Amino acid sequence: MMGGGAAVGIAGLAAPAIAQGTPEIAWKLTSSYPRSLSNLYGVAEDFAGWVSEATDGRFRISVAPVGEIAGPFEALEAIRDGKAEIAHTASYYYTDQDPAFAFGTTVPFGLNARQQNAWLYEGGGNALLNELYAGYGIFGLPAGNTGAQMGGWFRKEINSVEDLKGLRMRIPGLGGMTLAKLGVVPQQLGGADAAAKLAGGEIDAAEWVGPYDDLGLGFHKSARYYYHPGWWDGCGTVHLFIGLEQWNALPKSYQAIVTAAAAYANAKMQARYDVSAPAALETLLAEGTELRTFPQPVLEACFAAAGEVMAENSAASERFKAIYEPWSAFRRDEVAWFGVTELSFDTLMAALSREGKL
Amino acid sequence: MMGGGAAVGIAGLAAPAIAQGTPEIAWKLTSSYPRSLSNLYGVAEDFAGWVSEATDGRFRISVAPVGEIAGPFEALEAIRDGKAEIAHTASYYYTDQDPAFAFGTTVPFGLNARQQNAWLYEGGGNALLNELYAGYGIFGLPAGNTGAQMGGWFRKEINSVEDLKGLRMRIPGLGGMTLAKLGVVPQQLGGADAAAKLAGGEIDAAEWVGPYDDLGLGFHKSARYYYHPGWWDGCGTVHLFIGLEQWNALPKSYQAIVTAAAAYANAKMQARYDVSAPAALETLLAEGTELRTFPQPVLEACFAAAGEVMAENSAASERFKAIYEPWSAFRRDEVAWFGVTELSFDTLMAALSREGKL
Repeated sequence: MMGGGAAVGIAGLAAPAIAQGTPEIAWKLTSSYPRSLSNLYGVAEDFAGWVSEATDGRFRISVAPVGEIAGPFEALEAIRDGKAEIAHTASYYYTDQDPAFAFGTTVPFGLNARQQNAWLYEGGGNALLNELYAGYGIFGLPAGNTGAQMGGWFRKEINSVEDLKGLRMRIPGLGGMTLAKLGVVPQQLGGADAAAKLAGGEIDAAEWVGPYDDLGLGFHKSARYYYHPGWWDGCGTVHLFIGLEQWNALPKSYQAIVTAAAAYANAKMQARYDVSAPAALETLLAEGTELRTFPQPVLEACFAAAGEVMAENSAASERFKAIYEPWSAFRRDEVAWFGVTELSFDTLMAALSREGKL
Repeated sequence: MMGGGAAVGIAGLAAPAIAQGTPEIAWKLTSSYPRSLSNLYGVAEDFAGWVSEATDGRFRISVAPVGEIAGPFEALEAIRDGKAEIAHTASYYYTDQDPAFAFGTTVPFGLNARQQNAWLYEGGGNALLNELYAGYGIFGLPAGNTGAQMGGWFRKEINSVEDLKGLRMRIPGLGGMTLAKLGVVPQQLGGADAAAKLAGGEIDAAEWVGPYDDLGLGFHKSARYYYHPGWWDGCGTVHLFIGLEQWNALPKSYQAIVTAAAAYANAKMQARYDVSAPAALETLLAEGTELRTFPQPVLEACFAAAGEVMAENSAASERFKAIYEPWSAFRRDEVAWFGVTELSFDTLMAALSREGKL
C-alpha cells in the first residue's frame, strides 16, 4: 500500500497532473446508421461534440456513417480489428453471437423506454449487460432510444391470427422468431431494401421504426395499414460500444465525461424522436395511411409465442437465462406500477386529445 | 472587435492553455430537499460527484441539504445574495415571482415526463425558460424528474365534485388554484407538516409525490384512500438553477460538463423514482392503503377549472402567455402522438400485468 502511494507521488512529480489527466486522444466512431436517419445518426455527432467541448478539444471522436468503416451489424468486428475504437449501434444486432444481446435494446413484450432506462441505470441492467459485453471486448453505455415503435406496414388488414399465415414480413430478431411461430415468414432486411421489396411486392409487410423514419423510407406508398403497438419494440435503446481496452485506458475524468455525454445522448435521441413523430404521422395520414391496432386475439397469440421464444433462448444460452430471470422480475414490478398513475394520466390526456379539448 | 481578438491572443500567451481552461472552482449548492428524501437529494450529490470526476477534482461543488444555506423556496434569493452559486430546486416553487416559473416543473393537465423532456431539450422549452430565468439572474438546466405523481391521500372517498367542497387539502401552486375553484381549501405546507396535520385532523387530504416519498412521511397512517392520477403533476422536473454570472464565467469545457452531468441527473432521478416505487406501493397496500381513481366527472370539472386558471395566469403575466401558447401547441401534438403506439403498448402491458401473466 505504501509502495503504491509512493509510486503515485513520483508519477505526480514526473509529469504535470493536468497533462497526465487530459491526454490528446483521437477515436473513430462507426455508426450503424446513415446520415439520412438523422435522429439515429445525428446523436452520435452530438455526443462527439460534447466530449470534444468538455475536454477543450483534447478528446476527439470522428463519426463515420454506416458503410465507411463497417456495415450496420459489424461494430463488434470493427472494434476487435482496430478499425474503430467506438461504435453507435443496437445491441440486438449481435444476437447471432449470443441471444442475450437482445436485452440491451428490447425484447418482445419488454419494457417501455422509461422502464428500460430504470432497468439500465438503477435496476442492475447496465452491470448485467457489461458482463456479457466484456466477453466480446466491449464496454457498453446506453446512448439513445426510439421509444415504443410502430407495428409496421401491411397491405392487407390483420383481422385474425389466420391472417398472419404465410405473410412475408420484414421483421428481424426475436420479434421475427415470435411471428414465425404463427406462420409469418420473417425477412431480415435493411430499411431501404425492405421499402423496395414492399414496393415490388416481394414482401407483404414491413416494420421499421416509427412515423419519422418510416416516412423517410416511403413505406406508406406501398402499404395502406399502419399497425400499433410494435410489441416487439416497446422501446429501442441504442448503445455506444467502446473497446474495453481503450475504455480502461482512459483517464477517470474522460470516463466520467463519456458516461455523462452518453446519458445526454440517450435523452436527446428520445426527445428528437418524440418531437419529430407528430408532424410525420400527420403527413402519413394526409397521404392516405390508415392506423390500425392489432386485434386482441392476435396480441394474445403473439404473447404466448413470445413466451416460447424466450424459453427457448433461455435453454440455449446461459447468459440469456442469467439476464432473463432478474429482468422478468423487474418487468413484473415496473409494469404493475406503471399501470397505476402513469397509465391513468396518459389515458386521461389521450382521451382529452381525442375529444379535441387540448 | 480587433481589440477583443488581440486581448484573447495575449491572454493565451500569458497562461498555459490547459490551466486557463481548467481553473480550480468551488461552488456551494443549496438543495431544496432534506437528505431523507433520498431520490430528490441524492441526485444533487451524484451530479456534484460527476462534475468533480470529469474535472479531476478541479471543479468542486459541495451540496448542502435544505435549511443549511437556504429554505426550500429560497434558491433565487440564496444565489442573488451570494450564499450559493447553484441550487437544486423546482422551478414552480417561484411562481410568486412570476407564474411562468410553473412551466419548468409541470402545470395541471400538462406533459408526462417524456413529453416534458422532449419539450425542454428539443421543443424550445429550455430556451423559453432561460429567457424567463435570465430576468432573475439564473441559468437553468433540467436535472431530475419524479414522473407522474399520485393524486394524494384522502380520508373519505371522492365520489362526486360535491365531495370536494370544503375539503382542506395540502396542494400548492396551480393545482391548488384549480381545486379552489371547485371548493377545496388548498393548504401550502411542507411534506412533514402536511403529514402531521393530516394525522391531527387539521386537514382532510394531502398530496405529496408518490409511493416512495409518501411512505417515508407516513401519510397512509392517517388516510386510507390513495388517488390517481395526480393530474396537476403529470411529471415533476427538478432544475439546477445556476447564477447567470457564474455560469457565463465558466470555461466552455466546464459548461459542457455541467450540461451533460445535468442530463445524466435528469435521467438518474427518474430511474430512481421508477425503481423505488413498486416496493413502496406494495408496502402501502399491505398496510391497508386502497387505490382509487378520480371519477370521470371530477376529472372533467378539474380540467375545466384548470383551463380557467391557465387563462387567468395568461392574462396576469406576459411571460406566462408567451410560454403557454407555444407550449399548448406542443402539448396538443405530443399527446395526440403518445395516444398511438406508446399508449397502446402500455395499455397492453398493464392488462397482461393485471391478469398476472408477466
